Amino acid sequence: MPVTKKDIAEYVGVSRSAVSLVLNNTPSSTIAEKTRQKILQAAKELGYVGTEASPRLCFVLHGRTPDDPRYMYDLKIIEDAASKSNYSLLFVNIQAEPGDQEKLRKIIQNKEADGYIVTGDLDESAIDLIVSANVPYLFYGGIPREGTNSVVMDHRKGAYEAVKMLLEHGHRRIAFFSGNLETRIHRTNLEGYYEALEEAGIEVDKSLIQASKDEDGYEMCARLQVLDIDYTAIFCVNTVIQFGALQWLKERGIAVPSQVSLIGYGYSELAHLSKPELTTVFVSPADRQTAVARLIETIHRKKTSPEVTYLSEMKFFKGGTVSAAPKEK
Amino acid sequence: MPVTKKDIAEYVGVSRSAVSLVLNNTPSSTIAEKTRQKILQAAKELGYVGTEASPRLCFVLHGRTPDDPRYMYDLKIIEDAASKSNYSLLFVNIQAEPGDQEKLRKIIQNKEADGYIVTGDLDESAIDLIVSANVPYLFYGGIPREGTNSVVMDHRKGAYEAVKMLLEHGHRRIAFFSGNLETRIHRTNLEGYYEALEEAGIEVDKSLIQASKDEDGYEMCARLQVLDIDYTAIFCVNTVIQFGALQWLKERGIAVPSQVSLIGYGYSELAHLSKPELTTVFVSPADRQTAVARLIETIHRKKTSPEVTYLSEMKFFKGGTVSAAPKEK
Repeated sequence: MPVTKKDIAEYVGVSRSAVSLVLNNTPSSTIAEKTRQKILQAAKELGYVGTEASPRLCFVLHGRTPDDPRYMYDLKIIEDAASKSNYSLLFVNIQAEPGDQEKLRKIIQNKEADGYIVTGDLDESAIDLIVSANVPYLFYGGIPREGTNSVVMDHRKGAYEAVKMLLEHGHRRIAFFSGNLETRIHRTNLEGYYEALEEAGIEVDKSLIQASKDEDGYEMCARLQVLDIDYTAIFCVNTVIQFGALQWLKERGIAVPSQVSLIGYGYSELAHLSKPELTTVFVSPADRQTAVARLIETIHRKKTSPEVTYLSEMKFFKGGTVSAAPKEK
Repeated sequence: MPVTKKDIAEYVGVSRSAVSLVLNNTPSSTIAEKTRQKILQAAKELGYVGTEASPRLCFVLHGRTPDDPRYMYDLKIIEDAASKSNYSLLFVNIQAEPGDQEKLRKIIQNKEADGYIVTGDLDESAIDLIVSANVPYLFYGGIPREGTNSVVMDHRKGAYEAVKMLLEHGHRRIAFFSGNLETRIHRTNLEGYYEALEEAGIEVDKSLIQASKDEDGYEMCARLQVLDIDYTAIFCVNTVIQFGALQWLKERGIAVPSQVSLIGYGYSELAHLSKPELTTVFVSPADRQTAVARLIETIHRKKTSPEVTYLSEMKFFKGGTVSAAPKEK
């Protein structure tokens, strides 16, 4: 016999209507979060299969394609968190082409989802579209936008933690490899780099700071060689740059990590596929999943004023690209 | 003033009810496919925004996670094709864990989607769940399963085309790097390899055929060295193996492609990120998108008996890992 809401109510020791409110995700219900979680857990354990359609979140990937490894780790995390909260997930990919935003406009207009989690490369028109639609939304990742519902990664902290790890391994000549430095995220990375060095009493040598609009770590390594600039470690603002740097070093027969250590910010499948695996620092999955809880709170109108939240709980992926600094020659 | 169905009907020169049938995706409507496409195109050009919720397809990734680069290229293609046909796309990730299939069961039971496109690593219970649910579905990729609605890649043809390309570049000693050879897909790859060699009048040297359950191309290269087996080219059954092989060759200072050429089957972002870029053969995106058209036909009951379709229109991604065979020593 199928499990009913009554069964769940008895199991948890709450009223049947409380179970209904939670399983139907009724907006503005006043059930305590702890009780809500208990009811969802019981529904799962007892194998409850509802007859109402699940409420839906919509994962909007804007201006990037799904084969960009940097975003798919997030899709995994968001899908997992949504489904644990009993939401299903629409996926929509908006290309940076004229007219493609119509897709999103239509989904919003047809109320296909209860809330929107928006990531990728956002432009002003995308932001306007979402904010003016007056639907629950959350901008996820990217630059902090004051006055909007956003969850962003603490890039300063990420760079700080990564550089600190290199310092703890005895490195003193630490290069900084960045994308376009006009980008706010990369300037924030740089602040973290400065802060870690300052804390260790090391003066910044600006010749060690390299930027490449193409995010080409391979070419930045080549540059340092041409300029005859010494270094024993590199902090890379993302794994794509780090991967490129590793390729250059390997081709030149420079041993990683015994001659040069590499640490990157972020996490993607690339970190695993690389040989050796890439050592990186990244925002913990548990911290990222709070984005879904935050959006659900907005849907339930438990949160009203838009605000920017920083995710700053960092984790290390211990690949094989960091070791103690080589002895000075 | 918003565009109405009447506007579209006048623009295309069809009846208003024909426009309704198409835009509502009414199952079993008898509108000709050509007219259907015209109406959808006109709706798009005129900027029609419906008030009915779009019909939905559901992309089910089973037993793999979304950060597996092999599946995200498909998510991109399927999302694009679905949206062009006016469908929105649910995304659901079923882990290979007990109980996780309940997610999918619930989505099906609640009729959250009109059709299901199912990919990844499928086990019998997943197949049973889908087939017995009596909903429009399509198994996408993987091994051909007679008596089901499936679209699979023609792995024999892929391997054949790849090896033929190497032969045309003058290679004679071509290694075959595979995953577990008990897997049907890899045995099918092997058939294509045999066929291309036979056609060229080259006897198969079985010492050139290497398999690794871990799909470790790096280790397979090392094996050939220990065994002192000569080769000038390798066909790899996927890009992960190919990437591993490339790493080993680069570390040993063996020039790719001037000393050893590498060709892989499949396409993922890895092909781009690699230095040099990986040369691969893969099923063309246009051919893959026919999967969505096929599923929509099933939804509209234009197709009734389950059948397996092979996608065999191959494309080459011209990376930098294939060149003419080196002159014999």
